[in-house]
Amino acid sequence: MKIAVLGTGAVGRALAGRFAELGHEVAVGTRDPAATLARGGDYAAWAAERPQIAIASFADAAADADLVVNATSGTHSLAALDAAGAANLAGKVLLDVANEMTPADGLPLVGANETDSLGERIQRAFPETRVVKTLNTMNCDVMADPALVAGADHTVFVSGEDAEAKRVATELLEQMGHTDVLDLGGIESARGVETALAFWLRVRLAVGHNRFNFKIAR
Amino acid sequence: MKIAVLGTGAVGRALAGRFAELGHEVAVGTRDPAATLARGGDYAAWAAERPQIAIASFADAAADADLVVNATSGTHSLAALDAAGAANLAGKVLLDVANEMTPADGLPLVGANETDSLGERIQRAFPETRVVKTLNTMNCDVMADPALVAGADHTVFVSGEDAEAKRVATELLEQMGHTDVLDLGGIESARGVETALAFWLRVRLAVGHNRFNFKIAR
Repeated sequence: MKIAVLGTGAVGRALAGRFAELGHEVAVGTRDPAATLARGGDYAAWAAERPQIAIASFADAAADADLVVNATSGTHSLAALDAAGAANLAGKVLLDVANEMTPADGLPLVGANETDSLGERIQRAFPETRVVKTLNTMNCDVMADPALVAGADHTVFVSGEDAEAKRVATELLEQMGHTDVLDLGGIESARGVETALAFWLRVRLAVGHNRFNFKIAR
Repeated sequence: MKIAVLGTGAVGRALAGRFAELGHEVAVGTRDPAATLARGGDYAAWAAERPQIAIASFADAAADADLVVNATSGTHSLAALDAAGAANLAGKVLLDVANEMTPADGLPLVGANETDSLGERIQRAFPETRVVKTLNTMNCDVMADPALVAGADHTVFVSGEDAEAKRVATELLEQMGHTDVLDLGGIESARGVETALAFWLRVRLAVGHNRFNFKIAR
């Protein structure tokens, strides 16, 4: 597949690297590719070792892709997707893996609540795009390589309105090594997995690292 | 131990029954014991088969107990604990297993949020009581008999200010068959496990039953 990963941060890099490893044709989308590369730092160093992964504007990356991944920071996701352009996203599967949070004294505050979520806001803003909320309930290294934790014996969730889009997402997740993909229903269920960040953050403090994941024992 | 279980609903019955089975001396606390028994229904039928389990007022049950369990509905918990009486709760370990939620169109709305939780409100209202938030992240049958799910290979959390109280709680949880007791830290971390109810409710819809639990794979 041709996959556009929007976002050059740790999440974007982890997923883009993994998709390329699996043989997909990957472009990373960013606001200003020249500026991202000129800045040096994490992205430039990472990209220099992966010449097969393209970098492009949000719009160019999305236009070319079969499937788009929103790996931007949750507070900037809608702006990034606006820059990608509704026409470039129309009809496509969009995996939204973002979490919205704002700094606070102590743990960051989660943007989602029980009456709305980022996944739903994205679906409302881009009604012709087939949004699947997924992967946001774990650290990005675990997203990309689930075998890092407990032999991949843990759970990833998919939420979305479009059954075929969830099927495509599930197939890609399984290709990445996820062994238990649980369909939570419509995009409304993104409220469940996005508010779970408040739970995740506290478990992270307790276990002392981020190489863990939720498993639904059943 | 002498254990008072406050609450005659499904949660209270599941826990009281299990504690009695494990050899503890159990009293169930309710607002008006005579009225509870006279009403007939679930409690009276359940109690008739368990003559060794006493029923008493909230205050009498708490006064007699070494350890108290808040198994009332979350929206009524503070009133029930007020009825139990601060003096009767002072110095004691109080396991708070309650969830606060209010009916809504669709799924109920969770009372806890990222800035406060029932566990914290109880600890603030009863500063001399050693509150441990625990068990609220699973169905009551699984609370009482964790082996019902995946051979008990799943996680239960404890949150509280008092390390000794958490040790007592952990010992009791292990006696009940819980195999992975994860200390989340102070009572503030009740926000994590209480807001997780929004996640739990959606997982329940997806799996189609409530015989499941969160496991922290790590």
